Amino acid sequence: MIYFSSFIYWLDLFGTAVFALSGALMAGRYKLDPFGVVVLAAVTAVGGGTIRDVILDTPVFWVQSPIYLLVILATALCVIVIIRQPRLIPKRFLLVSDALGLALFAVIGAQKALLLGAPPAVAIVMGTITGVAGGMIRDVLCNVIPLILRQEIYATIAIFAGGLFVGLRSLEVSVEIATIITIVLAFSLRLWAIYRKVSLPAFDIDDQQ
Amino acid sequence: MIYFSSFIYWLDLFGTAVFALSGALMAGRYKLDPFGVVVLAAVTAVGGGTIRDVILDTPVFWVQSPIYLLVILATALCVIVIIRQPRLIPKRFLLVSDALGLALFAVIGAQKALLLGAPPAVAIVMGTITGVAGGMIRDVLCNVIPLILRQEIYATIAIFAGGLFVGLRSLEVSVEIATIITIVLAFSLRLWAIYRKVSLPAFDIDDQQ
Amino acid sequence: MIYFSSFIYWLDLFGTAVFALSGALMAGRYKLDPFGVVVLAAVTAVGGGTIRDVILDTPVFWVQSPIYLLVILATALCVIVIIRQPRLIPKRFLLVSDALGLALFAVIGAQKALLLGAPPAVAIVMGTITGVAGGMIRDVLCNVIPLILRQEIYATIAIFAGGLFVGLRSLEVSVEIATIITIVLAFSLRLWAIYRKVSLPAFDIDDQQ
Repeated sequence: MIYFSSFIYWLDLFGTAVFALSGALMAGRYKLDPFGVVVLAAVTAVGGGTIRDVILDTPVFWVQSPIYLLVILATALCVIVIIRQPRLIPKRFLLVSDALGLALFAVIGAQKALLLGAPPAVAIVMGTITGVAGGMIRDVLCNVIPLILRQEIYATIAIFAGGLFVGLRSLEVSVEIATIITIVLAFSLRLWAIYRKVSLPAFDIDDQQ
Repeated sequence: MIYFSSFIYWLDLFGTAVFALSGALMAGRYKLDPFGVVVLAAVTAVGGGTIRDVILDTPVFWVQSPIYLLVILATALCVIVIIRQPRLIPKRFLLVSDALGLALFAVIGAQKALLLGAPPAVAIVMGTITGVAGGMIRDVLCNVIPLILRQEIYATIAIFAGGLFVGLRSLEVSVEIATIITIVLAFSLRLWAIYRKVSLPAFDIDDQQ
Repeated sequence: MIYFSSFIYWLDLFGTAVFALSGALMAGRYKLDPFGVVVLAAVTAVGGGTIRDVILDTPVFWVQSPIYLLVILATALCVIVIIRQPRLIPKRFLLVSDALGLALFAVIGAQKALLLGAPPAVAIVMGTITGVAGGMIRDVLCNVIPLILRQEIYATIAIFAGGLFVGLRSLEVSVEIATIITIVLAFSLRLWAIYRKVSLPAFDIDDQQ
């Protein structure tokens, strides 16, 4: 079990780095100042978990463990330094890492809510918030409609991952197995959606209403 | 008194459904994916109350009572299903319902703050936040300047409702009567503003400054 | 020491008024309704401190001391009344006051975090949030990319001020002296950046990636 906790811990830090990377790259696209890059990387990486912890009224995770801040700072600095050769970060790597971060954060968020005694519906919502809110804030700060609301079933996968994990746990599946099943399925589904460019049918209102 | 609490409870759920509806319809306008519709409906419906509870450092209402989440989900699903015939939701119904939701949420927010011992000025602010913040987040996510900041005295009415309720309560008017007076007046004022297209004189800065 | 606390207290209220002014003027630029002006002034002035207090899980400062709300209301009303002659508020005065507010709020935020026992890295982040988050929310509500992310090393100075204050405190410099040194240096640096139009080299990604 020690090994498993440790595995989750490293995956969590990896997810943090990945989301920080996506925020830093977005900052690059909008020509922000280097410290603006750090701010956007941080908001993307810890925004979702911060909202989750505040709503659950539990201590915010990165206030307890500042290592998350160091991971973000290191990621942002790397991006600033090596960005002159953006080909070093192939788009495929970014999308795949982001998909893993999404799956992982949704599970971590749902699990934390269950541990704190939240009802299942709330745990699903917390998984979704943890997975998508950071990216939403990133997009809002850059003045674009959050892509996660419209693209390749991103929000769908966050809700699915939260729901699957909560469902497996309510069936008394162990935390370890529920975590692995959920991450593998949500990650695969997201990759499949990216490569097939799958979207759910757009929900469209006749503007002549 | 049981009857009155129950009446407020149902009005609260109705207000939640109405704001969820407005978020879902906005999502339709921007061609979001179906689960993006659910996310936007939820943010609109519970955003204001969530910020209020977090600032007051009291347990967030929908974490305690997940029925709010079910109301939102049901509303979003209904909208997705029947939206092919948008004429089923006449614009007039939407505006009237939204006006009722605004009045109701402003009173509920102010009352909750007073119950928790907040000073009157804070209670007015909490009423305003509860009434308008969800719609503001909805508009920000859709990348438009929140209409409530500029249109038909929307923010004005939220502040007015909070102030009137707090004022009546400080005059020792009973909760029930203060609630009914405030909702009726704020609701009427908003309807009057909508039908007469009333706005306060725009506050405009000479750009040549 | 009484004198010093009192000095900080008045500077804090002054910073609140200055940020409220910047929010109100922004509202004017976007032709908001008068109460929209009040809302935007409030969000700009207390947004950063509110997020700080919520994350630190300490009572939100303006819920405890509603005088901040009165300062904001008075500032917004003054702006609405005298705005017909915008030359009464020279742009230079606005930029200088805003620079002072930034330096002061960054120090206040970092100091509050340290008092609550937060680790140094967290205290720096809290200083940054207190200094810049209100302005970011103001810009997001007005549908522009937050200028503080891209202009004249604004975020840089907030991070610098937080870091300097925390560093001085860890060297056992007294609160008073650390406060004065940090405010003077951060304020001067910001003024220098404004007058010289200094920016850090924009961090730019080759779009052909």
